[in-house]
Amino acid sequence: MTGRFITLEGGDGAGKTTQAALLTDWLEASGRTVVRTREPGGTDLGQRIREMVLHERGHVAPRAEALLYAADRAHHVETVVRPALERGEVVLQDRYIDSSVAYQGVARGLGADRIRSVSEWAADGLAPDLTVLLDLDVTVGRARVAAARGDTFDRLESEAAAFHETVRGAFLDAAAAEPARFLVVDASAPAEDVQRAVRTAVGALVGIPAPDPSAS
Amino acid sequence: MTGRFITLEGGDGAGKTTQAALLTDWLEASGRTVVRTREPGGTDLGQRIREMVLHERGHVAPRAEALLYAADRAHHVETVVRPALERGEVVLQDRYIDSSVAYQGVARGLGADRIRSVSEWAADGLAPDLTVLLDLDVTVGRARVAAARGDTFDRLESEAAAFHETVRGAFLDAAAAEPARFLVVDASAPAEDVQRAVRTAVGALVGIPAPDPSAS
Repeated sequence: MTGRFITLEGGDGAGKTTQAALLTDWLEASGRTVVRTREPGGTDLGQRIREMVLHERGHVAPRAEALLYAADRAHHVETVVRPALERGEVVLQDRYIDSSVAYQGVARGLGADRIRSVSEWAADGLAPDLTVLLDLDVTVGRARVAAARGDTFDRLESEAAAFHETVRGAFLDAAAAEPARFLVVDASAPAEDVQRAVRTAVGALVGIPAPDPSAS
Repeated sequence: MTGRFITLEGGDGAGKTTQAALLTDWLEASGRTVVRTREPGGTDLGQRIREMVLHERGHVAPRAEALLYAADRAHHVETVVRPALERGEVVLQDRYIDSSVAYQGVARGLGADRIRSVSEWAADGLAPDLTVLLDLDVTVGRARVAAARGDTFDRLESEAAAFHETVRGAFLDAAAAEPARFLVVDASAPAEDVQRAVRTAVGALVGIPAPDPSAS
């Protein structure tokens, strides 16, 4: 594989979509081919799984939820991510195994080790080259989401604040355990400052000179 | 738990549906409450998963297929099977973990141990009290299916004969490894003879006297 696999992690409202869009523009302007994708929902099959998990009105057994995310991942990695990496492209992905570990493994109490093991099997061992964790105070993130969408939360977003605090802690623990893979950015900073930090790390990974720190 | 969990396994055309119907009639006539169910598709969520796995026209990544079956299982066991067993009922189920191990683990080559481990986690360790394996020559089973349905095979049914031979061998291996849990019946025998053998084993499990061998 000659491509680069970059994942974006963080709670809702942390700015993953904004940062991914800015980063894609910059990478493409530098001549890189970028595949922007996400889990769950990065394939047709995954879209149906995403709908099932996030918008199911009735109860979904927690282990079923975790396994549906893993199924989405298996199909997505095999049919989208690996082929792009084999073509030498940059894959920029919203959420990956770290989200499953944080949400299902830790916050839902299914066990971080078990969820990581199932996820890694689903992905046949594919690990990101770089994971950008957009870290943000939970209250700030939820206020951003509410403002942007007019208070329509999906199932995960409407979980209690304590759940999201636990998720935030789990992401920070994952970053502390693998500092070489993670870039942790304070997502309460202005979007352009966050993007500058992201471009520096991504530029080093894909071989683009670091942006001039005096430019925005 | 005070109920009894009985699973029916075997290839397509082996007579699982017929045997389950006959067994249900007999158990209900003996005053037992029976929950007849199946995997995949024993819940509303599972119906959607079943549709996704069996009738998807495009390629489904093999690990995704296995994880979708596991998700179906997790939801089904938590919301249907365990509650029925806790009410003291007899759960009579078409396919369970042994099918996943035989089809995905062995025949698709994903690894019997891995598929068993994921399945057992999905089911939170729930094992059947009795598994009836309806063993049948693959060619005979496929001819029965074709005759009954007019040659419309779903994705798994239309796999090559060698695949189904492998599945048959995997079921027999599972039975050999756990003889106390399995009843292996020659499914080429007349349905009433198969049913007599099934009733003898089930009667011993649920406390109903064995049927008179001279009656049919």
